[in-house]
Amino acid sequence: MTLRVLGIDPGLTRCGFGVVDVEPNRRATLAGVTVVGTSADVPLEQRLLAIATAIDEWLDRYTPDVLAVERVFSQLNVSTVMGTAQASGIVITAAARRGITVAHHTPTEVKAAVTGNGQADKAAVTKMVTRILRLDTPPRPADAADALALAITHAWRGSATTASAAAGGRSLTPAQRAWAEAQARAQRRKW
Amino acid sequence: MTLRVLGIDPGLTRCGFGVVDVEPNRRATLAGVTVVGTSADVPLEQRLLAIATAIDEWLDRYTPDVLAVERVFSQLNVSTVMGTAQASGIVITAAARRGITVAHHTPTEVKAAVTGNGQADKAAVTKMVTRILRLDTPPRPADAADALALAITHAWRGSATTASAAAGGRSLTPAQRAWAEAQARAQRRKW
Repeated sequence: MTLRVLGIDPGLTRCGFGVVDVEPNRRATLAGVTVVGTSADVPLEQRLLAIATAIDEWLDRYTPDVLAVERVFSQLNVSTVMGTAQASGIVITAAARRGITVAHHTPTEVKAAVTGNGQADKAAVTKMVTRILRLDTPPRPADAADALALAITHAWRGSATTASAAAGGRSLTPAQRAWAEAQARAQRRKW
Repeated sequence: MTLRVLGIDPGLTRCGFGVVDVEPNRRATLAGVTVVGTSADVPLEQRLLAIATAIDEWLDRYTPDVLAVERVFSQLNVSTVMGTAQASGIVITAAARRGITVAHHTPTEVKAAVTGNGQADKAAVTKMVTRILRLDTPPRPADAADALALAITHAWRGSATTASAAAGGRSLTPAQRAWAEAQARAQRRKW
């Protein structure tokens, strides 16, 4: 009854991947974490291909129930948002090809979910991710913490999946449906 | 010695695909044209998957020498640029997976190349594309003209490919190299 979420912090230079297994009682365990990407002097098509190859590998290796991606709409730097959007488009498509549910969360939602404060800084997020996953040291690479925070946020919030999953749960797997029901019960108890 | 270029006018709602065969004497012939995409009420992952499926089909069917994509960096509307960037990321990755050279041209470059005026309006671009391709009527769907204009621009300009192709032509096919040489000769004569 564990929900496996692959969180993605999209980018061309540093694209964070974090896999977390979350039980209905919200206990979260690290399954895998990495940062992929290429330097800015690599031709764009090779940079995008590197992301595409990595996401296919990780989807094959970890077979997550859900892909949770940072919603990049909130970025305002047009030159950065381009690469971020391109990277997010690739990972979302890779998940959609496999029929994996895709969810989106804003940075504010992620910070609020893991620290209780939507304005928390990076250090506070990393500290809470380390504690939530019961790790002895902060996850490495250091900037993969955001991807793990995204995965945790998705599993804990649950309700913020995309319209396709929300519309009667038609695209949910049986495990996901059971999880959603368990979570709804937990929410009635706890919140 | 014909160069086949697949021009892409990226977008989620309307993504233009235009295939043009261009001979070393710049004579251009329409090989295929369409517009793909989905309405905004479709979940993002399904919208991206529709683009991904269509580009794979077209790359298989037309086996272009080059994919020419509109450089979306010049757009300033952040909400539109997101979907455009995601769609462009997908088509670029699909080409890179097949080892197809990817080139980028700005809307201004395209307008200048096909009409002689970088500020030309859509009607002027469509009119010139119709004339250049020796069509009896404007290409349909109507908004596919930009994709065709991109393909023509790439074949005519040639030099504006990405760094990987420019760096000694290592990623050029023999046909592309021959074309580039022929074009260089033509440019010395005409410009």
